[in-house]
Amino acid sequence: MNGAPRLALLLTGNELMTGDIVDSNSAMIAGQLLDQGLSVHYKVTVGDDLQLLKQELERLASQFEILIVNGGLGPTSDDMTAEALALASRQKLAEHPEARAHLEHICREIGMPLSPANLKQALLPEGCDIIPNPVGSAVGFFMQLKVCEVFCTPGVPHELKCMLEQEILPRVSARLDEEQKPVRTRLKVFGFGESSLQQLLSDRFPDWPAEIEIGFRASLPMLELKLQTRQAHQALLEDWTRRVRSQLGAHVISETQTTMQEALVTLLQEKNKKVTCAESCTGGLVASLLTQVSGASAVFEAGFVTYSNGIKQEVLGVSAEHLKTQGAVSEVVVREMLLGALARSHADLGVAISGIAGPEGGSADKPVGTVWLAWGTKETVKTAALRIPGTRKRFQMVTATIAMDLVRRELLGIEEPANYLIERALHKSRSGQ
Amino acid sequence: MNGAPRLALLLTGNELMTGDIVDSNSAMIAGQLLDQGLSVHYKVTVGDDLQLLKQELERLASQFEILIVNGGLGPTSDDMTAEALALASRQKLAEHPEARAHLEHICREIGMPLSPANLKQALLPEGCDIIPNPVGSAVGFFMQLKVCEVFCTPGVPHELKCMLEQEILPRVSARLDEEQKPVRTRLKVFGFGESSLQQLLSDRFPDWPAEIEIGFRASLPMLELKLQTRQAHQALLEDWTRRVRSQLGAHVISETQTTMQEALVTLLQEKNKKVTCAESCTGGLVASLLTQVSGASAVFEAGFVTYSNGIKQEVLGVSAEHLKTQGAVSEVVVREMLLGALARSHADLGVAISGIAGPEGGSADKPVGTVWLAWGTKETVKTAALRIPGTRKRFQMVTATIAMDLVRRELLGIEEPANYLIERALHKSRSGQ
Repeated sequence: MNGAPRLALLLTGNELMTGDIVDSNSAMIAGQLLDQGLSVHYKVTVGDDLQLLKQELERLASQFEILIVNGGLGPTSDDMTAEALALASRQKLAEHPEARAHLEHICREIGMPLSPANLKQALLPEGCDIIPNPVGSAVGFFMQLKVCEVFCTPGVPHELKCMLEQEILPRVSARLDEEQKPVRTRLKVFGFGESSLQQLLSDRFPDWPAEIEIGFRASLPMLELKLQTRQAHQALLEDWTRRVRSQLGAHVISETQTTMQEALVTLLQEKNKKVTCAESCTGGLVASLLTQVSGASAVFEAGFVTYSNGIKQEVLGVSAEHLKTQGAVSEVVVREMLLGALARSHADLGVAISGIAGPEGGSADKPVGTVWLAWGTKETVKTAALRIPGTRKRFQMVTATIAMDLVRRELLGIEEPANYLIERALHKSRSGQ
Repeated sequence: MNGAPRLALLLTGNELMTGDIVDSNSAMIAGQLLDQGLSVHYKVTVGDDLQLLKQELERLASQFEILIVNGGLGPTSDDMTAEALALASRQKLAEHPEARAHLEHICREIGMPLSPANLKQALLPEGCDIIPNPVGSAVGFFMQLKVCEVFCTPGVPHELKCMLEQEILPRVSARLDEEQKPVRTRLKVFGFGESSLQQLLSDRFPDWPAEIEIGFRASLPMLELKLQTRQAHQALLEDWTRRVRSQLGAHVISETQTTMQEALVTLLQEKNKKVTCAESCTGGLVASLLTQVSGASAVFEAGFVTYSNGIKQEVLGVSAEHLKTQGAVSEVVVREMLLGALARSHADLGVAISGIAGPEGGSADKPVGTVWLAWGTKETVKTAALRIPGTRKRFQMVTATIAMDLVRRELLGIEEPANYLIERALHKSRSGQ
């Protein structure tokens, strides 16, 4: 990419030097820049050291055309990005009226007085411009320093993301020719691991065109598939996106950044249906994920977390006899859990989950990771037993996402089984495949 | 830390520059060094660029006494650490007999012929020494360059870890006096924002000793407070840790990496009590967080996600009259939700939550972020109304954590109100403070 500006990152924070946190911000910044056709050439990380920060700002600003600084915008004394930039640019620190107004607004909103510590966040180098922060107290700011446009951003990931998307990426990508900009489609896929999806695509599409780069990115529990090319091959990209979508069918959740719960809530709203869930091993995670989505109240009224056998009987009406003879992790029990939840919630359809999240509680017959699911309406209950390997947390997240996907597929009227129902079927796992 | 060697990291690999992977190696290196009393002062990350690598090796080797290089030891042409170090040190690349012997041994073990690509891994700068790799094909190596001891290590995390523990840490920590090694305490705090905690500490402890460094780290929804000094001041550190703990009282959740849900589940186990929750606006998040903890089944049997008014009546027995006259977000309704959940779950104590998570659903009287909580046993129900600002997701996470903290404080028998009950009290917020 000839002519693209040279770009560096400067990360600051003692917590990045001590191993206390793993820096995921710089990967996020780099990924978003790359989507615009911009590469990061160089990255420096330093602690909360004013002289070192100043020195690095001066050095990098003389070698790069764009510098994104991340961290050190907070209210405490170890946050010193503004001061370092003032030193490097030989400007005074002064209260920036827009930054102060923003702090006053934030404090009013949350009903807190404006403290001296907060006010420090309005002290910025003279001559800099503000990058608004719609989601937090620290505004970002940018200024020209030597040959370089320096953008200072907060360390809080969602605040950084918001500034990147709304202000910084549009500004820096305006420097690129249209021709340099990549075009791409992204498909959010659920139900395949990275290697099995890669295998499937190379088996089904031996004639894959060289012009279209293919990339995979795990965004657990989903997988993101990225097809990318240059503007000149836009039509080809659209054609191959269609072919891939058609191959993957309902395993493609969306072409946007939609989560499974967002996709399901939207679909329930469209179909004007209500859902319920009866959860044992996922402990409320399905309910919690669904109700993260704004507007969930229109499609979700009740969820039941029935962790013990006694509660499964009392709250959902599961048969004591079945619990005793079949165990809580069994087809008949999840079926009764689902029917009980549907009756008590008056929902149109639902899902019930009972399994062994581990690390304790497994047996030879039902090892850790075994789960029974029941889903559908009271007339059409379907069931499946799966084996979901991994840690307790991963088991819960994957199982909850499968539960939502099963309801989604039911609403879409899809008959062919999802890949995970085949790949992760309990009997297949147990026979050692 | 006077006398401690100055230490830098140099990470290399295109995958670190594109955002495709998040660098967790450097946090691991930094954490292990810190345990020995060695701080990382500076960190640079570059792609697979021979000239840039050479230039950074020269620059860092003239400024630091220890440099750990990570990545670029593999068999492919984009692995160029050895070549760059040869250029920087003006040494030839030559086949190192020990490195070759190691490769031959590895290839024999896995039954593969020694390929030219593999043999490249034995080409090292003349005069360097080997760091054995008991778990992989790439040996590490080290040499003196200018004022600096340069250690080159592989990017594969478990190979790196093994070299660090067995060879590098013993070598570098031998340079330190016992006196230089740091000691620290960490407190997990819940109920204060970073700026209000800093304000509190500076108000209450005007005589804070210069010997003890204080650090804050947001680990939402908690805050980590770190006090650090040198071994010589160990007694002072213990004394001031005691003072801070005594000032913060039950706002200190633990001195370890414990989450709120882990602290609560442990406490419930110790007290042999069972908990339940009735959730509206948090939609199952409390249940989900509690059941993330392994062993939760001993203390948690049932949770109720009652999102609609109808379900609050049918499942928990909340009065229709109260819902109509007071609204779902009201003291009487959360009280009845709690009593209903306690009766149906047979739990010893519990918490009920009803609020407006937003972004829709607020009113002048009850704006978005308003929440009523009820907690305690059926004999001792307590209630509070709070205003929790922020996004829907943040509202749910903070509210769920407060809910768990209220139960924790009840179990501990703490009478004085938590900071958030004062700072975030609804009436205070509504009067605009």
